[in-house]
Amino acid sequence: MHNKYKEIDINDFENIKKLIGDAERVLFKDEINPDYSHDELGGIDKMPDILVKAHSAKEISDIMKYAYENHIPVTARGSGTGLVGACVPLFGGIVIETTGMNKILELDEENLTLTLEPGVLLMEISKYVEEKDFFYPPDPGEKSATIGGNISTNAGGMRAVKYGVTRDYVRGLEVVLPNGEIIEVGGKVVKNSSGYSIKDLIIGSEGTLGIITKVILKLIPLPKHTISLLVPFEDLNTAIDAVPSIIKSKAIPTAIEFLQREVIFAAEEYLGKIFPDKSSDSYLLLTFDGNSKEQVEKDYEKVADLCLEIGALDAYLVDTEERKEAVWSARGAFLEAIHGSTDEMDECDVVVPRNNVAEFIKYTKILAKEFDIRIPSFGHAGDGNLHVYICKDSMDVELWNKKRADVFEKMYDKSLELGGLVSGEHGIGFAKKEYMFNQYNGGHLNLMVGIKEIFDPKNILNPGKVCK
Amino acid sequence: MHNKYKEIDINDFENIKKLIGDAERVLFKDEINPDYSHDELGGIDKMPDILVKAHSAKEISDIMKYAYENHIPVTARGSGTGLVGACVPLFGGIVIETTGMNKILELDEENLTLTLEPGVLLMEISKYVEEKDFFYPPDPGEKSATIGGNISTNAGGMRAVKYGVTRDYVRGLEVVLPNGEIIEVGGKVVKNSSGYSIKDLIIGSEGTLGIITKVILKLIPLPKHTISLLVPFEDLNTAIDAVPSIIKSKAIPTAIEFLQREVIFAAEEYLGKIFPDKSSDSYLLLTFDGNSKEQVEKDYEKVADLCLEIGALDAYLVDTEERKEAVWSARGAFLEAIHGSTDEMDECDVVVPRNNVAEFIKYTKILAKEFDIRIPSFGHAGDGNLHVYICKDSMDVELWNKKRADVFEKMYDKSLELGGLVSGEHGIGFAKKEYMFNQYNGGHLNLMVGIKEIFDPKNILNPGKVCK
Repeated sequence: MHNKYKEIDINDFENIKKLIGDAERVLFKDEINPDYSHDELGGIDKMPDILVKAHSAKEISDIMKYAYENHIPVTARGSGTGLVGACVPLFGGIVIETTGMNKILELDEENLTLTLEPGVLLMEISKYVEEKDFFYPPDPGEKSATIGGNISTNAGGMRAVKYGVTRDYVRGLEVVLPNGEIIEVGGKVVKNSSGYSIKDLIIGSEGTLGIITKVILKLIPLPKHTISLLVPFEDLNTAIDAVPSIIKSKAIPTAIEFLQREVIFAAEEYLGKIFPDKSSDSYLLLTFDGNSKEQVEKDYEKVADLCLEIGALDAYLVDTEERKEAVWSARGAFLEAIHGSTDEMDECDVVVPRNNVAEFIKYTKILAKEFDIRIPSFGHAGDGNLHVYICKDSMDVELWNKKRADVFEKMYDKSLELGGLVSGEHGIGFAKKEYMFNQYNGGHLNLMVGIKEIFDPKNILNPGKVCK
Repeated sequence: MHNKYKEIDINDFENIKKLIGDAERVLFKDEINPDYSHDELGGIDKMPDILVKAHSAKEISDIMKYAYENHIPVTARGSGTGLVGACVPLFGGIVIETTGMNKILELDEENLTLTLEPGVLLMEISKYVEEKDFFYPPDPGEKSATIGGNISTNAGGMRAVKYGVTRDYVRGLEVVLPNGEIIEVGGKVVKNSSGYSIKDLIIGSEGTLGIITKVILKLIPLPKHTISLLVPFEDLNTAIDAVPSIIKSKAIPTAIEFLQREVIFAAEEYLGKIFPDKSSDSYLLLTFDGNSKEQVEKDYEKVADLCLEIGALDAYLVDTEERKEAVWSARGAFLEAIHGSTDEMDECDVVVPRNNVAEFIKYTKILAKEFDIRIPSFGHAGDGNLHVYICKDSMDVELWNKKRADVFEKMYDKSLELGGLVSGEHGIGFAKKEYMFNQYNGGHLNLMVGIKEIFDPKNILNPGKVCK
């Protein structure tokens, strides 16, 4: 019933232009680049009627007020690097792009906070703060994502094993609500017990409850020493089975990634660069950090010894610049490399308790055989968050759609059985709604739908996503 | 309109007894100990009509279903150590006490999680996990509080400077909703981007959205070395002004507490124990921890030198068991000591950005003079969370009420001016509602009220608290 939106016409376009006062930042229909019709997920796209390249919270508030009054759907968009269609304007209307709001506003060294606009890119944040000896720990693979987008999916990244996820580093937000009102939640404060945490509702809500227009992040001092360890194993099971033992040893690595030969080959081909070791089927890539060189060494030696005991074939220190570059550029290119290896793919971003990772990966191998389909994967073995890709390759569309649906259903059922959840960090968006609906019981879902209606009674903000 | 609750009669009592099946755990009116009419806050009490000492989620669910059907208010209660009246049954009805649900269910060393019932006490958690070389970092002063209560106020404690607050260590919850439905949110997983975070709404909601019946906590390995440093200063301003410089130095202490002589004297009297140094007006008490002794030493030496540079009179290592006991037992007794020094008091638990702590404390000194009232304080200088007490002493009630209201208003206005919030860790409950209403704008408050209505349309769960 909420979906009878106003048809956008030239008057709306003129009115929005007047609100913004800069005609170059407001585009209409055919003027809009088709890239704005989709994110990195294949198979779903829809063009917006109006694109606004916003420069301020005031502008976004004015647009929302107009949209609220006129019942026009609005979808916010950062860099468009999402994988679940969360920024696709399913019902057309207005897309607000925030990449022009890309200023770092303040580094507060006394409160260890960084205040910035939502369109700042992850790679810009790390560069800026690390030059000043500070550290923003969340480290998602896609460095050209915006911080606004990262907060909207509660992205996790590689360092979640030790440092937690984006949510843990968001101190405060400025948010434009669907009716155009601007609110501030949280602040520079470390503790907060002042009513329900609206901030934590906005985090991970994928642009369906409000549009983030300012961010206060928590920083920590940059650890003085970091080292990576590449540990080859004869097979994937042995590699992943080592992870719970590593955690149990109480030497907590910053990151524990798992790598498989076939994905490494794809990355080599994609990058045109050689990976330092391909003799083994599977690898763990671990990092350790800290302020004491001695302690970092003690930690990785302990873990290296433990891995060798468990069955690792070797344990290489990734210590030269050349090796670091080779290993980490490969790791960073996995998604693109798999993407490049097939004409279409779909992704499953499940998260399971970390001692169930091995069982889940084993299951994907069984499915690959059973359905005769390629299912490469990589991911965060240390925190239980897997990125599993099913590849269309040369399949015809009908068969692909059938197999994809069947394999996904089985994978999500398995994840549920293992105490897991539908998404670790990529979100629900449009593509994973059905699977989330299957996972949560009625009461849980009703709460989400009820919350959406409280924030957005007219259902104009990013409609068709997450729970509606 | 929601407040026309059913009058409880003997039939309700009999029905509840039938649901529970153990008559000894269901008490009626005069049988109930008057302690159940209040928490540690003075000035507000109300007896429940029925008290249930619950033993399971099923029992709580059955009671909620009965209450939902019959429109009876229900208030959950842990140890009753709160300071804002959050567990006082303002409209009578049923109080559910959870201290009988006090089992630690599972330590999962591979996932670094502890699963437990909500009635386990903080002191039991630290004892249990530290014996096994694990660490639950949140460290609120009141060790006899339950974990359910701590989650309900998002308690912070002393180690928030380095380790964050309770919210950061709650991986999953089982919750009974006001209609009796049981839901599970989160889990043993490290990452989660699967819809709106209902878990984070429950955390800090002071028992108004649901009753927590099971908890999964995140643990970390126990740091191998801990050391405390007691640093005397000539006056409080110099002491507190040192804190932002300490943070800026990038040696992050585990805790930075500030102590004032008058509060130390009160604690000595209360405990009958001698504090090791009273020559100075003010002190910072710092702790440092880590796995490398060398690194911990480097950190505290750096901070000690920095404090001496800034104007500290000395820097004592708190390294003998005797000194540790003397210093930390005093710190642990501050609240009780101030409580014991006056016939009534009220507390302000503001949180401000840490570089504004000095200014806030200065302001309380001005208010104490202006209003001729005693305002001792202590608190968490490192994370900006202050515990400020205004004491009735020998004042008559009318004057006390007037002065209390005036002083509180001024303090909360000041906190807002300094970028602070009403409560850092004690919550809003009944006592701080008005101040929170003054702080948040309409849109922000409307969201809270709307959320409450979605969870609890009949307003039967802990009515009259937080935002309703």
